Amino acid sequence: MSFHPTYDTGNFLFRYQTIRKQTEKICAPLSPEDTVMQPMVDVSPPKWHLGHTTWFFETFILVPHLPGYQSYHPQYAFLFNSYYNSMGSRVARSDRGTLSRPPLEDIYAYRRHVDEAMEEALGMTSLLENPSIAAVIELGLQHEQQHQELLLTDIKYILSCNPLLPAYLPEVPAVSSLFSEKHLSNEWSTVPAGVYSVGYEGDGFCFDNELKAHQVYIAEFQARRSLVTNGEYLEFIEAGGYSDFKYWLDEGWQLAQQQQWQAPLYWVQLDGEWWMYTLHGLLKLDLQAPVTHVSFYEALAYANWSGYRLLTEFEWEVLAQLHANPVTDGNFMESELYHPVAAVIRDDSTQVAHLLGNTWEWTYSGYFPYPGFETAPGALGEYNGKFMVNQLVLRGGSCATPQSHIRPTYRNFFHADKRWQFTGIRLAKR
Amino acid sequence: MSFHPTYDTGNFLFRYQTIRKQTEKICAPLSPEDTVMQPMVDVSPPKWHLGHTTWFFETFILVPHLPGYQSYHPQYAFLFNSYYNSMGSRVARSDRGTLSRPPLEDIYAYRRHVDEAMEEALGMTSLLENPSIAAVIELGLQHEQQHQELLLTDIKYILSCNPLLPAYLPEVPAVSSLFSEKHLSNEWSTVPAGVYSVGYEGDGFCFDNELKAHQVYIAEFQARRSLVTNGEYLEFIEAGGYSDFKYWLDEGWQLAQQQQWQAPLYWVQLDGEWWMYTLHGLLKLDLQAPVTHVSFYEALAYANWSGYRLLTEFEWEVLAQLHANPVTDGNFMESELYHPVAAVIRDDSTQVAHLLGNTWEWTYSGYFPYPGFETAPGALGEYNGKFMVNQLVLRGGSCATPQSHIRPTYRNFFHADKRWQFTGIRLAKR
Amino acid sequence: MSFHPTYDTGNFLFRYQTIRKQTEKICAPLSPEDTVMQPMVDVSPPKWHLGHTTWFFETFILVPHLPGYQSYHPQYAFLFNSYYNSMGSRVARSDRGTLSRPPLEDIYAYRRHVDEAMEEALGMTSLLENPSIAAVIELGLQHEQQHQELLLTDIKYILSCNPLLPAYLPEVPAVSSLFSEKHLSNEWSTVPAGVYSVGYEGDGFCFDNELKAHQVYIAEFQARRSLVTNGEYLEFIEAGGYSDFKYWLDEGWQLAQQQQWQAPLYWVQLDGEWWMYTLHGLLKLDLQAPVTHVSFYEALAYANWSGYRLLTEFEWEVLAQLHANPVTDGNFMESELYHPVAAVIRDDSTQVAHLLGNTWEWTYSGYFPYPGFETAPGALGEYNGKFMVNQLVLRGGSCATPQSHIRPTYRNFFHADKRWQFTGIRLAKR
Amino acid sequence: MSFHPTYDTGNFLFRYQTIRKQTEKICAPLSPEDTVMQPMVDVSPPKWHLGHTTWFFETFILVPHLPGYQSYHPQYAFLFNSYYNSMGSRVARSDRGTLSRPPLEDIYAYRRHVDEAMEEALGMTSLLENPSIAAVIELGLQHEQQHQELLLTDIKYILSCNPLLPAYLPEVPAVSSLFSEKHLSNEWSTVPAGVYSVGYEGDGFCFDNELKAHQVYIAEFQARRSLVTNGEYLEFIEAGGYSDFKYWLDEGWQLAQQQQWQAPLYWVQLDGEWWMYTLHGLLKLDLQAPVTHVSFYEALAYANWSGYRLLTEFEWEVLAQLHANPVTDGNFMESELYHPVAAVIRDDSTQVAHLLGNTWEWTYSGYFPYPGFETAPGALGEYNGKFMVNQLVLRGGSCATPQSHIRPTYRNFFHADKRWQFTGIRLAKR
Repeated sequence: MSFHPTYDTGNFLFRYQTIRKQTEKICAPLSPEDTVMQPMVDVSPPKWHLGHTTWFFETFILVPHLPGYQSYHPQYAFLFNSYYNSMGSRVARSDRGTLSRPPLEDIYAYRRHVDEAMEEALGMTSLLENPSIAAVIELGLQHEQQHQELLLTDIKYILSCNPLLPAYLPEVPAVSSLFSEKHLSNEWSTVPAGVYSVGYEGDGFCFDNELKAHQVYIAEFQARRSLVTNGEYLEFIEAGGYSDFKYWLDEGWQLAQQQQWQAPLYWVQLDGEWWMYTLHGLLKLDLQAPVTHVSFYEALAYANWSGYRLLTEFEWEVLAQLHANPVTDGNFMESELYHPVAAVIRDDSTQVAHLLGNTWEWTYSGYFPYPGFETAPGALGEYNGKFMVNQLVLRGGSCATPQSHIRPTYRNFFHADKRWQFTGIRLAKR
Repeated sequence: MSFHPTYDTGNFLFRYQTIRKQTEKICAPLSPEDTVMQPMVDVSPPKWHLGHTTWFFETFILVPHLPGYQSYHPQYAFLFNSYYNSMGSRVARSDRGTLSRPPLEDIYAYRRHVDEAMEEALGMTSLLENPSIAAVIELGLQHEQQHQELLLTDIKYILSCNPLLPAYLPEVPAVSSLFSEKHLSNEWSTVPAGVYSVGYEGDGFCFDNELKAHQVYIAEFQARRSLVTNGEYLEFIEAGGYSDFKYWLDEGWQLAQQQQWQAPLYWVQLDGEWWMYTLHGLLKLDLQAPVTHVSFYEALAYANWSGYRLLTEFEWEVLAQLHANPVTDGNFMESELYHPVAAVIRDDSTQVAHLLGNTWEWTYSGYFPYPGFETAPGALGEYNGKFMVNQLVLRGGSCATPQSHIRPTYRNFFHADKRWQFTGIRLAKR
Repeated sequence: MSFHPTYDTGNFLFRYQTIRKQTEKICAPLSPEDTVMQPMVDVSPPKWHLGHTTWFFETFILVPHLPGYQSYHPQYAFLFNSYYNSMGSRVARSDRGTLSRPPLEDIYAYRRHVDEAMEEALGMTSLLENPSIAAVIELGLQHEQQHQELLLTDIKYILSCNPLLPAYLPEVPAVSSLFSEKHLSNEWSTVPAGVYSVGYEGDGFCFDNELKAHQVYIAEFQARRSLVTNGEYLEFIEAGGYSDFKYWLDEGWQLAQQQQWQAPLYWVQLDGEWWMYTLHGLLKLDLQAPVTHVSFYEALAYANWSGYRLLTEFEWEVLAQLHANPVTDGNFMESELYHPVAAVIRDDSTQVAHLLGNTWEWTYSGYFPYPGFETAPGALGEYNGKFMVNQLVLRGGSCATPQSHIRPTYRNFFHADKRWQFTGIRLAKR
Repeated sequence: MSFHPTYDTGNFLFRYQTIRKQTEKICAPLSPEDTVMQPMVDVSPPKWHLGHTTWFFETFILVPHLPGYQSYHPQYAFLFNSYYNSMGSRVARSDRGTLSRPPLEDIYAYRRHVDEAMEEALGMTSLLENPSIAAVIELGLQHEQQHQELLLTDIKYILSCNPLLPAYLPEVPAVSSLFSEKHLSNEWSTVPAGVYSVGYEGDGFCFDNELKAHQVYIAEFQARRSLVTNGEYLEFIEAGGYSDFKYWLDEGWQLAQQQQWQAPLYWVQLDGEWWMYTLHGLLKLDLQAPVTHVSFYEALAYANWSGYRLLTEFEWEVLAQLHANPVTDGNFMESELYHPVAAVIRDDSTQVAHLLGNTWEWTYSGYFPYPGFETAPGALGEYNGKFMVNQLVLRGGSCATPQSHIRPTYRNFFHADKRWQFTGIRLAKR
């Protein structure tokens, strides 16, 4: 996390309450049994998310800084630590799905207990005026927003494993007004060559991995104004893209063969027609909407097949500096669509659609430290830095990302084979 | 299953209602989350047991034989088939733990639906008088009793995986009256040599694997009147039994090393003292009670270390013919202790304690067909026969077995490495 | 091993020289590279066999009993110990294929070194007259004969993995005289019910697992006079035997699906015609010859499909007592065909063909100790006993078994999935 | 590969003969058995290297371009294809160790056959003047040089697996004259900030992954003039570096725990003293020599512990542009030391020691395409591009790299866990 001296700490209490409530709103449609599922190791049970985000505030704020605070339960530190070696032993990630107890109501009681204490803490000027404590509070809020997105994508994966294919939210929202009149696939915006500054430079919050801001040289290139659509991706499938090795990285090809990938995750072919499983249940494939739930391997294979390429993370960031559409066109968690939508954009501009929101965009950049990268001291130094190998950077947020959480310098990262996030494809040329 | 022409079909309705109620009683202390856990592949989620036993009656009685019966849900046949290839595709055994839906209340509604139809069916003489239908009804009842034992052992395993070590039934029953005054470890009963008949010969129910009754030649041997106790097993541990290969089968030794076995399943050493996890929570190790939750490998290693041996399944059965204690000394599911107890027996007899109940007894006999073994036609032919390799026979039932379910000819079977059932050790010599 | 007081020790030297020479004769056609291959964990490199059989004599005879004997190399004890925990650490079985050194010529020099010392030892009456030393010498000879068979089957597997499909012995022997005129498939011989004695009772050598001889009760049954042929097995294949679960044990079915078994090991279909890989290269499938290289799972599935069954090991042994053909009809290692041949038998007899030699016969009996089984003291106690679980007994020897090594009481044992030995099928009914 | 129009084709024949001879010289000390070993999947058997490099010339030059050329053997294309999907099916990489045949002498005969045809081809102006054919010839030569280094590292790994720890070359070369008088660990050279050009720009040969040359912005940094030594690395070990997670990437930490890494590959502690297995057998650890056989994870953990960092690949390349020592100080394959040596350098300069030769240097840069990267058409397009994910770039060559094969723009790449190459550590600061 970053160490900017000044946060709007006066706003902390309001934001704390809003964010905490939002997490619980996301879990409201779930049955108790839904909240303990871990159908693959990447997915965490919703109950665990509810506990872990609470544990974060308890461990890093209340225990060290709130005088007289009593931990809710002596073993919760063991149950809800995610990966902080500094904080002692913990439930193995792959065993999170074995935890039927504590029951869901105890988790909510734990949240109440911590919320009350946090509300007290957020009224204490001694805490708010301590910059390093304020930084951790801010981090806790950002952290819980990250878990909101993970909750949505984990819930989607959990329910998709059930042969009954239940919907998370049964009503399908009316999104037609968001659909584009015009196909933007031939529209490109240009970034001229030059030395640009990338990385976070403001005085708000950013993660440690966005620092330090630094210079990069970028050669001229063009980026597509719209994301690759389901319709375009379907052409790749129908052209045999999944059965011709020449578009694929070697490791991707081997994996695709072994897993028998034939389409993005959640696509289902029934009686010759394509459907997609969504948080609103099984829907007919929307050809105009951006393709999502593709791995990096598929994104790159598509790009190779199309004759274009993916952007690097720095190209993406400079593109966003020069051509981003006003944020209002975004499709974030708050819109509660929980699915990407087709682009709406004035086609006489050079604006690029949906850089923020809709789908994360795979870049062809490894997740590595920026020059001068430094981790925080102590346990929070494990937040980002120790994952900086074997992952790719994704940019821009998705339809499951809280709008206030994302920004152009934000670096998300996943392994090349992951498909359960809302991941999509932006093309470049030259 | 067997095909004896005459069952007491007039009693079917009462037994049906009693057995079905008992299954639900076993699940009553569980939270909804508990009912979906599958922490290892051998364990099935309690919700699945509740559904599968119901599916059995629906599939094999109601759908084919009750006119006008409407299936409760078209996909439940897929969800709750266990292993019957004849009945079509099914959820993979290892994926039973991914089923958060249908919710627990739907499973109970499914049970109500089937119970009502079964109550109707059990009043129809046309069904009851059809011997092959009556045989399947009887099998359904026996099948649900088998799952009652599995429910108890699966629940124990599920809760034991939780770091909070919750108790299934918090109150520890007062079992002191069941404890022995006298240590029977040096008492042995003799079986003289001869040709004996083994296998089921009565006109009640038995499983297909107990047939046909046949002659076997048994050489003279002696069997210990009491099971091996925790105290005796502890001597084996303290003598280094787990670290000396010479007592072990090769495959057992490799497994024990790899899994780092140091004691039976559920034994825990805290501050130098031994405890055991039970369905009543963590209790101090009871040195007089029979050892349980040992694999066949451990049972045989113990026997080798002690200088004695295990019985064959036929020796066991003849022993039961000659020396069984009256059934009243048994410790079955109905006693609701859910844990083995020390022997009570008149020491001036040759009776052998706890042949029935308390713990299953590993025999050194492979699970193979009897001469003239025949499977039932159709799907129910898959009930037992297809498992007849690579497993060992266990005899006698345990503290989790319904009393009316067990008999001396009953053949249970598990792989040599399994420890989550209530398995124990009986010694022989000569 | 057994502890009979009297062996023909005067014959030891001659047998030692003959057997040792035979092992080297088997390896003569191999290239140095062939001798280090371990394409699956069950297979040992021929060089390892050459060393291990030598190590046996060095370890158990020369080091303890020949005064002044100098070990050939201090590390060979580590390299060539197979599985004797008592003899210290060793190369992991799965790593035997990593040993390019010592070079082949060093192994032969090691053999020379040990042979010379053994020839000296076999001239010392002090050794020969010591019954327990004589027993170990005898065991060493038998042990090397066992490895001769393993050498042949391992060599076959090694060469079969090579895309060039090289022949071990290029010339195909003229075996036509061994082919039967008459199809014996409908001929059966009867064993009447009774109590029989099984197990070894003579005063020659036997393994510990053949003891003690004991009584068994056998019900009347009939056994087929000839082994199941390739032609008969082909009918099973063509009738869909590999794709109908109902003939299969559950574990066999899962394995067959996973491994995509469609025929016995070494069968290859080229342009619609069946061939079999043999030690003489690829030959056309001989429909009259006994089927071989089938797992127990396949043997049992075939038996189930045919409406018959497999024998138990005791039925087999009694059958051999009553109906064995004179040994001269056997096809053993010495015939150097290294492949099973069709039966030659007078069809007006009740003799059963090829009980000894040709193919091992899977029985439906687990490999367990006989009553009163005792292991030898010390390391040689690990010879057989520690493998007595999860394996099936095979009887009768094969075309790769030395004739002087086999007898009717001999118990071989393999896991149900193994196919690389010369294993075949004998049917019974009733 | 690159497509420069002009190569010194007049030199091809001489280089061909020299390089081919060198490959065979490397294999000369091996026994036939050594040449078929594949103790881990990354390692290829030497015989396979001998065949594969030959297959390359046969497949890409002789078959398409030499009129009347007859393939040596119809199945060698299957046996010796490495990973070219375009060239049809092939032996699975993990099965290369199952190939005892063809025998070693056949492989050499194959080489002779191809060498004679190549010598003919290299005399035909029609081929030499065809730029795309000339490019493939050049690539074949470079390719064989790459396999020379792999041969040396694979041989080292193969022999190291043998409990006898045989030496590849028994004589230890006298390298004392190469040892430094002075410890350079505190000496650093500076690279000033600026936009630099990286990537290959000459008119000689380069691989496709070195293109296109492009601009990068580099911030000022300092690089250590000497590689990290065994002595320095030993301090890290003794300070507990292998047991403190905080220096490690998460995936590296998990791997190190699971594999129980305590030191670089080939380090052995005997009676409290450290030794290292080398191609000259087991030698005492040389504290002044550069540490080698470390994974990227270990390199980065060391850097983190030391308070410094690794370079990026572009920092390394610019460092080499500004501060490289004259090539003569290098330690390459040709020196036949086959082990890194301590630095010799004038300490009043700013030269950086051993940028080329000695050990490959892990950079903290992922292996990704340069801007404008293009693969060759056809099978050779699979040469590099399809591996561009999940690997790190290494720079500079090692003591096993042919001197004429390496250059400052050369990009080698391995997964972060690999240790069997001669990999080492260069530090940077700022």
